[in-house]
Amino acid sequence: MITKSQYEKARREMLRGLKRAGIVTTAKEAGRIEVADFGLSRFAEIGLGVLTYVNTKRCCAKELALLPWQICPEHRHPKVGGEPGKEETFRCRQGVVFLYVPGPKARRPHGRAPADRKPFFTVWHEVVLKPGEQYTLQPNTLHWFQAGSRGAIVSEFSTRSRDEADIFTDPDIARCTKIR
Amino acid sequence: MITKSQYEKARREMLRGLKRAGIVTTAKEAGRIEVADFGLSRFAEIGLGVLTYVNTKRCCAKELALLPWQICPEHRHPKVGGEPGKEETFRCRQGVVFLYVPGPKARRPHGRAPADRKPFFTVWHEVVLKPGEQYTLQPNTLHWFQAGSRGAIVSEFSTRSRDEADIFTDPDIARCTKIR
Repeated sequence: MITKSQYEKARREMLRGLKRAGIVTTAKEAGRIEVADFGLSRFAEIGLGVLTYVNTKRCCAKELALLPWQICPEHRHPKVGGEPGKEETFRCRQGVVFLYVPGPKARRPHGRAPADRKPFFTVWHEVVLKPGEQYTLQPNTLHWFQAGSRGAIVSEFSTRSRDEADIFTDPDIARCTKIR
Repeated sequence: MITKSQYEKARREMLRGLKRAGIVTTAKEAGRIEVADFGLSRFAEIGLGVLTYVNTKRCCAKELALLPWQICPEHRHPKVGGEPGKEETFRCRQGVVFLYVPGPKARRPHGRAPADRKPFFTVWHEVVLKPGEQYTLQPNTLHWFQAGSRGAIVSEFSTRSRDEADIFTDPDIARCTKIR
């Protein structure tokens, strides 16, 4: 849960981040930025700003904004109905993103899981994305990511987005954020 | 057909345009920018620079660069095999784009088709896209677009791109550009 004023602050921060990254948005878009705290009520640590440009049955494009060291927690996009899960490409636009996927564990990962939620961060193969760098994730692949010390703006290009179908490793997570 | 030096010039111009728009690219990407003259050998008028970020069986993202008043000629994306045609969203990042689609004809369109190819521009419903504005095109919809006086950078978010399947109104067009 986040408060209305936290929501507004996060929204303004995302708009500033987009502007710094040279990304122009309309007033209407600014009004529908999504602020996700994943139901954990610790937005500055685990959370994300999202501006969805388009999301049809076939494809989707978004901008994601992360505060310094903010984490998008571990999850995967499973098959829904007969359709394969969401396939997504993350492209770093500004800042640095540490993306974690299955594979050989990084010896000294840059990312840091919050101590009390560490068991719910299980993949530690590190992909470092700097501006202009990108990574394509196959459907149903566990992943999480964290911004570096200056935050990050990341473009996501994907198949249809169905956030409600995402499966998070942390059982306390709820994808839909409540604003009170 | 374009010459190697025209290709290099167009590539450099696209890179400058991306930079002005705040879009960071890697050196590897800079090396694989596509310069399309649609086989008409009049690139400054009818042509396009394309940087494809990702193009899988399911989705695709590109940046398109147009010089001042440059035109991407009229075409559509038909069904291929059992799959519906390409669905695409154009999002203007910098400059202005005049997009033409089926519908009531603009009384005073901003775009201008070259006099000798005018019969091959048949849709004149005008959508003006300024930075931050976008338009989603349904599969198999005839469309063409032209940049305004300062050129344009346009992001394209779409389903799988199969340029070779595109159907152009102008019978002299060949999608694959020859560089000699």
